[in-house]
Amino acid sequence: MSEVRLAFMGFGNVGRALGSLLLRKREDILKDFDITFRVTGIATGRHGAAIDPHGIDLAQALVLVEGGDSLKTLSDHPAPRDGLDFIRACPADVLFESIPVNYDRGQPAIDYLKTALEHQMHAVTANKGPVVHAYRELTDLAALHGCKFYFESAVMDGAPLFSMFRAALPAAGLRRFRGVLNSTTNLMLKRMEEGDSFEQAVAHAQSIGIAETDPSGDIDGWDAAVKVSALVTVLMGLPLKPAQVDRTGIRGITPEAVQQARAEHKRWKLVCMAERQGQDVVSRVAPELVGTDSPLYGVQGTSSLVTFETDVLGELSIVEENPGPHTTAYGMLADFLNAVRQ
Amino acid sequence: MSEVRLAFMGFGNVGRALGSLLLRKREDILKDFDITFRVTGIATGRHGAAIDPHGIDLAQALVLVEGGDSLKTLSDHPAPRDGLDFIRACPADVLFESIPVNYDRGQPAIDYLKTALEHQMHAVTANKGPVVHAYRELTDLAALHGCKFYFESAVMDGAPLFSMFRAALPAAGLRRFRGVLNSTTNLMLKRMEEGDSFEQAVAHAQSIGIAETDPSGDIDGWDAAVKVSALVTVLMGLPLKPAQVDRTGIRGITPEAVQQARAEHKRWKLVCMAERQGQDVVSRVAPELVGTDSPLYGVQGTSSLVTFETDVLGELSIVEENPGPHTTAYGMLADFLNAVRQ
Repeated sequence: MSEVRLAFMGFGNVGRALGSLLLRKREDILKDFDITFRVTGIATGRHGAAIDPHGIDLAQALVLVEGGDSLKTLSDHPAPRDGLDFIRACPADVLFESIPVNYDRGQPAIDYLKTALEHQMHAVTANKGPVVHAYRELTDLAALHGCKFYFESAVMDGAPLFSMFRAALPAAGLRRFRGVLNSTTNLMLKRMEEGDSFEQAVAHAQSIGIAETDPSGDIDGWDAAVKVSALVTVLMGLPLKPAQVDRTGIRGITPEAVQQARAEHKRWKLVCMAERQGQDVVSRVAPELVGTDSPLYGVQGTSSLVTFETDVLGELSIVEENPGPHTTAYGMLADFLNAVRQ
Repeated sequence: MSEVRLAFMGFGNVGRALGSLLLRKREDILKDFDITFRVTGIATGRHGAAIDPHGIDLAQALVLVEGGDSLKTLSDHPAPRDGLDFIRACPADVLFESIPVNYDRGQPAIDYLKTALEHQMHAVTANKGPVVHAYRELTDLAALHGCKFYFESAVMDGAPLFSMFRAALPAAGLRRFRGVLNSTTNLMLKRMEEGDSFEQAVAHAQSIGIAETDPSGDIDGWDAAVKVSALVTVLMGLPLKPAQVDRTGIRGITPEAVQQARAEHKRWKLVCMAERQGQDVVSRVAPELVGTDSPLYGVQGTSSLVTFETDVLGELSIVEENPGPHTTAYGMLADFLNAVRQ
């Protein structure tokens, strides 16, 4: 039996869902993998931080933060000055990073993940930023320290995309992919089919917490482009920045256009694609009209689908229904177990 | 760099597709996994057998068999008396088994796989029979000898179902699955939608080589029930025999019923499902009418889909388009690489 020490950088919806999942799966993890774990540190944006090498009571930490209280009472260390100080002071084998991230540069997440790897921790993130801006650098740094940099939840939440290619599809070459990867716009298009105006559809997505106050990252296709970049960079091995993706959002798709499509048994979808062409790649995010025989037609609301065309299988698609913080949390749990069980 | 010795028991469409794939992927396998391979034995039903510890020319073996010739000229051993004798005489690290199999008992494949494991070979099969009739026994025997018993291609060809749960979804508990898993009936239903009679649809499936001379295994839902058994046995850990699956085939689905459904924008599908209920399982194969919003609606022709509901993700679906001997062969290649790279 081995014991793994876990640290949380970020304890928002995703971090707390991961905390609850760890508590629920503690016995399965012991039974299936002969692994126990201890939480040695939790750093939050608004509820202070706690470090205790002997173990923090995770259930109590969840209660404190959900009740609006500080974690300081659980700490046997002085409060860290900042995120980097927290990581350096916290003795851990795995860092779970789920902080709000800057998509233009991937900071401060990249610096946190680097520091964790330099301190021999496996670095697990739910953020796309570090993947599109520092995949090669963080992967090489991880290898140098005998650790893993894993990020299953960065695209399609906990659905196993990266780990499937890594662990289940050996020697497969990815030629092309195509799919619906942005939940907010897919939900908005469904709402417009049901009668919402564009503005009502935005307001609905905001009301359930999946669209930002400024929804342009979703509506203009940026979030989808970041996901395309992450998939191309990791699965095709070709570094691609979001700005290099040919990108059209859904501002041109009116409720009238959506209703017209409906009358013809068709639907508008914000379609992501990339295709390898020699050592280069063509990539695009743009609205497309799809019919009932397209696998994208039935991908409704917050669900996602991606179809991979490889040089060994025909087309293989992965569909994820109704994701949420709990599925993102599962992707992080899977990364942790996949990193330490090797 | 390590060299792996490979033996083929069965060199029909699937075995030969695997041979071609190995030749095509030789350099990728060396580059990605630092593995080289040598074919030390090939046993066929109608073209004799060859054993050569120094290595058989795989390209030449393909030419001989495809030209209707015997493999005997490639052998430096006396002809084996039978399949078991071949396995005992062939020095190998991996046995690829793809022979015609008896679904009632899984023989002679089970005996071949056992013998391979007892001789310290990883046992890779494309057959469902050994999975539903001897999964526990073969898995335990493999563990005893430090080997793997893998069978990715037994359900949905090369699509990574078993390896996904094994390697990419740690600590996930499977509660329920539902899908279209029999290609022949799915193609027949599509042909009837396009105007075929039931008999014409059967004849078409036979003409392209996916239905047997006696098509009742597909039409009466037996093939689907065997797949349900395999998934329940392996992924839910509950041994289930095909005869225990509540089973209705598609004999009751007339072309008129298919056309009527079409007029309502619906389709008949032969749906497989199983659901865990405590330590028991409810399982069923039966035709169902699905609408355009069902993910099953767009699964046409020989394509397959399965939706998994786990206790950690919502619903996760895998869709495979246009399978064939090449995708079955890839599942076997993946099993080989996943077995030896560990």
